[in-house]
Amino acid sequence: MANYILLVDCKDEKGLIHKITGVLYNQGLNIISNNEFVEEEADHFFMRSEFTGEVNGDAIITQLRDTLSKDSNIKLIKQRKKRIIIFVTKEHRCLGDILIKNEYNEINAEILAVVSNYPDLESLVSKFKIPFYYVSHLNKAREAHEEEILEILEKCKPDYLVLAKYMRILTRKFVSLFENRIINIHHSFLPAFVGVNPYEQAFKRGVKIIGATSHFVTEQLDEGPIIVQEIISVDHKYTVRDMEQAGREVEIMALSKALKLVFEDKVFISNNKTIIFE
Amino acid sequence: MANYILLVDCKDEKGLIHKITGVLYNQGLNIISNNEFVEEEADHFFMRSEFTGEVNGDAIITQLRDTLSKDSNIKLIKQRKKRIIIFVTKEHRCLGDILIKNEYNEINAEILAVVSNYPDLESLVSKFKIPFYYVSHLNKAREAHEEEILEILEKCKPDYLVLAKYMRILTRKFVSLFENRIINIHHSFLPAFVGVNPYEQAFKRGVKIIGATSHFVTEQLDEGPIIVQEIISVDHKYTVRDMEQAGREVEIMALSKALKLVFEDKVFISNNKTIIFE
Amino acid sequence: MANYILLVDCKDEKGLIHKITGVLYNQGLNIISNNEFVEEEADHFFMRSEFTGEVNGDAIITQLRDTLSKDSNIKLIKQRKKRIIIFVTKEHRCLGDILIKNEYNEINAEILAVVSNYPDLESLVSKFKIPFYYVSHLNKAREAHEEEILEILEKCKPDYLVLAKYMRILTRKFVSLFENRIINIHHSFLPAFVGVNPYEQAFKRGVKIIGATSHFVTEQLDEGPIIVQEIISVDHKYTVRDMEQAGREVEIMALSKALKLVFEDKVFISNNKTIIFE
Amino acid sequence: MANYILLVDCKDEKGLIHKITGVLYNQGLNIISNNEFVEEEADHFFMRSEFTGEVNGDAIITQLRDTLSKDSNIKLIKQRKKRIIIFVTKEHRCLGDILIKNEYNEINAEILAVVSNYPDLESLVSKFKIPFYYVSHLNKAREAHEEEILEILEKCKPDYLVLAKYMRILTRKFVSLFENRIINIHHSFLPAFVGVNPYEQAFKRGVKIIGATSHFVTEQLDEGPIIVQEIISVDHKYTVRDMEQAGREVEIMALSKALKLVFEDKVFISNNKTIIFE
Repeated sequence: MANYILLVDCKDEKGLIHKITGVLYNQGLNIISNNEFVEEEADHFFMRSEFTGEVNGDAIITQLRDTLSKDSNIKLIKQRKKRIIIFVTKEHRCLGDILIKNEYNEINAEILAVVSNYPDLESLVSKFKIPFYYVSHLNKAREAHEEEILEILEKCKPDYLVLAKYMRILTRKFVSLFENRIINIHHSFLPAFVGVNPYEQAFKRGVKIIGATSHFVTEQLDEGPIIVQEIISVDHKYTVRDMEQAGREVEIMALSKALKLVFEDKVFISNNKTIIFE
Repeated sequence: MANYILLVDCKDEKGLIHKITGVLYNQGLNIISNNEFVEEEADHFFMRSEFTGEVNGDAIITQLRDTLSKDSNIKLIKQRKKRIIIFVTKEHRCLGDILIKNEYNEINAEILAVVSNYPDLESLVSKFKIPFYYVSHLNKAREAHEEEILEILEKCKPDYLVLAKYMRILTRKFVSLFENRIINIHHSFLPAFVGVNPYEQAFKRGVKIIGATSHFVTEQLDEGPIIVQEIISVDHKYTVRDMEQAGREVEIMALSKALKLVFEDKVFISNNKTIIFE
Repeated sequence: MANYILLVDCKDEKGLIHKITGVLYNQGLNIISNNEFVEEEADHFFMRSEFTGEVNGDAIITQLRDTLSKDSNIKLIKQRKKRIIIFVTKEHRCLGDILIKNEYNEINAEILAVVSNYPDLESLVSKFKIPFYYVSHLNKAREAHEEEILEILEKCKPDYLVLAKYMRILTRKFVSLFENRIINIHHSFLPAFVGVNPYEQAFKRGVKIIGATSHFVTEQLDEGPIIVQEIISVDHKYTVRDMEQAGREVEIMALSKALKLVFEDKVFISNNKTIIFE
Repeated sequence: MANYILLVDCKDEKGLIHKITGVLYNQGLNIISNNEFVEEEADHFFMRSEFTGEVNGDAIITQLRDTLSKDSNIKLIKQRKKRIIIFVTKEHRCLGDILIKNEYNEINAEILAVVSNYPDLESLVSKFKIPFYYVSHLNKAREAHEEEILEILEKCKPDYLVLAKYMRILTRKFVSLFENRIINIHHSFLPAFVGVNPYEQAFKRGVKIIGATSHFVTEQLDEGPIIVQEIISVDHKYTVRDMEQAGREVEIMALSKALKLVFEDKVFISNNKTIIFE
């Protein structure tokens, strides 16, 4: 008997928890965990219910539609492994962490393929018997390169794309095809050090802490909703290279936590921010 | 219009959230935040609702009694500053932190008095115009000493007693008078280093992290429900004294967080553990 | 018998540690701790020695001058409490922490006075019998306001100025009078959120971590050498006000650590960065 | 031109830094980094120098022997990858982390083999083309089992043994053969929760933080010198299984940091404690 997750968000009003849980109760379902949040500045209500039982999805949706206001967002999810595609360039650290966790079923996902604009990581990926697609970007327009990748994606039908140190900027068009479904790991504590060479910048500024940020990708580079941020202390003895290495460790941590949250349907997106029910 | 908090815990069953929020909805009340938790091993349900509106306390309680099983615990709290008494011996650090926060209304409490078995901290307390009771324990049986303190407490009628580095062990009888209402700060990361001289022990063991634990006081020394634990890194350069000093800092942090949680009615106690709705 | 601290920095070359410790050894002094660092990009050597013994300061300086290259920086410091002046505006939190620590000799400083452009904090400061100077900035040119403050400083002869939430920008001229001697606490994790309303900015960006930065003040606003950075986790439930409150806690921590390091002469400044020998 | 590391420890006396660096200076060597520490309670001096140059090891040792007291410990190390053997049982997490890091030369070690008392992890190890020795302990006396393992070790001649979740207790005899050369990861924040089922214990006690400890193995179980401790916050929602999973993450971090420190010769052992020069 699988677990189900109900995600509802709508304009706030009195009695919402009572009404929504009433629909589940009438169906004889057992709520395992329930979370709500009201975003005050937008007067908006968010709720996540995890429940088990003999689920009649259509009945639940219909009753909720009857109960709630027209513009409510209602999403009923049967828990299953998310289908994901990982994008990388040359760095192996985040990829390695995901592959090992996947090998032992510690990540709620099925890795359909790894896509890269360089061939370097094929040997690592092949150890785990996962398809590796090398799609070089050399001598190609950005759009043409993405077209080639899209062909792969169309075959795979992924739920999420994970940019695990993919060092290419995606076009607006590409991003719009996967709205709220692309997760990136950014090598800095956003919004500090946007753009390239964040460790070089951090070194020059003499910071004492460096960070990493996992976020959804939107059309604005490095501006999407933040899911997880992690930090690590550094000091004057750290060279740029040392900072990079320390940075890798927090990148792994931040991405790993973000994937766990997203793949367990614990993340709402609202006003370019995330609401996370842990 | 004050905020109210409803705390309910009872045996778990289907529909509890629906039923309890229904009582509040029928009264036309507006839930600001709602938290639930089911303790699986005990099959027990916990819920905390914070709400505003025209509250008829008796009606709410009556309807909840009618709705829920007989052995449910129901507590309706009108938010107000908790009345507290602080116990200290000679150390000023946790006390100083509380006094400064209290001076600027940053703590949801009214300090009725400070009680100490030494006179040392009177000058600090008097700066803040708070009564200081020096009750020496010298040449007195433990019970006789506590009797003197109880006389003060009877006049003050405190909600909570805060042991902010009070270096005396309380009798079972005294503790039983304030069940779940005495909060202690323990100078170690419990359950490591119970008892005296934890920093001496930590130094000898060569630990790399020291901690502090804020917990409710029960009849078993250092064994009560843990509310907050905090830690700080140390290394081989730390002397016992350095560890003590670092320890003070985490003690302040741990106690400060614990008081905030307890004074905002966010803590349930169950099976000698705490369930905290942050 | 007091402790002495020797701070030397110069162009790196072979044998520096041997030569410098030789001068101390010849004087029969006992090194308690010794730290060195070579800044590779500048090929520059830094050393801090803490020692005890019968110190002939002139002899040490002369011998070091003979031993080291002409452009070496040599500073011999007899350990004593630093003379400091604290600047505040209306916020009491950092000030309160320093006052309590000072009351119990936990800070290696003597507070000569507190200066403020508002009268609000006089009642707090007076509890601790420390002079409070209220110098309003209203209807005054920035320079005129600073002139009034400088009169106070000239009488006090402070070693350091501590800006414990002083919400005024200092003129270049003022800053230049106290080069490397003004310590500020900045309410963000620099370089993120420079300027005003950092918590408002942080809230809008939906960050998951907020921070505070203690740094030396230079003529470039928020751009001086960073001494300490601290962070705290936040989530979607935090309002701007909650973030501010959490921010205060890390501000206190960051400033407190920075003052400890600076007042114990553990901080070198080089290329707008700090080298810290803990 | 390789880096060399000199480790010296001896009874403390005046001038030691000067004398030891003098030997290196006379040989025309260039000190890259230098660390000293005096353990006050034992009046013992520790120094680590990292240097480059044309090294005549015999000359350095001879001169140091002439300069220092007879009972000094002097160790001159040419930097190279440490030869290690990893011991595991069934858990893959720490092993996986080490294998991935090793694959990309991020660990200063050469993995000679993985030894296990179960066959489960062979498939993971074989992906990385590293010998895997399955040595079952079933129906064997502890000594007989260790004899079989010792045969493998004798062929491999490892510098260090890494117990990456090896769930067997080693005999005193075995431990004595590899004094200060066996590194373990212990699944708790020692000294809390020694022995078996630490997460079960932690769950029952309702702790708010769980930890992991990497330490050298001595004849006293769980009592050896601590190298690194790491922690992670947990709350009432964590089941025993959740705690185990969170614990795995900190175990990986703690072991990874400990291996880095040990394999870069940054760790002294003294009085069952570690002195670590980072």
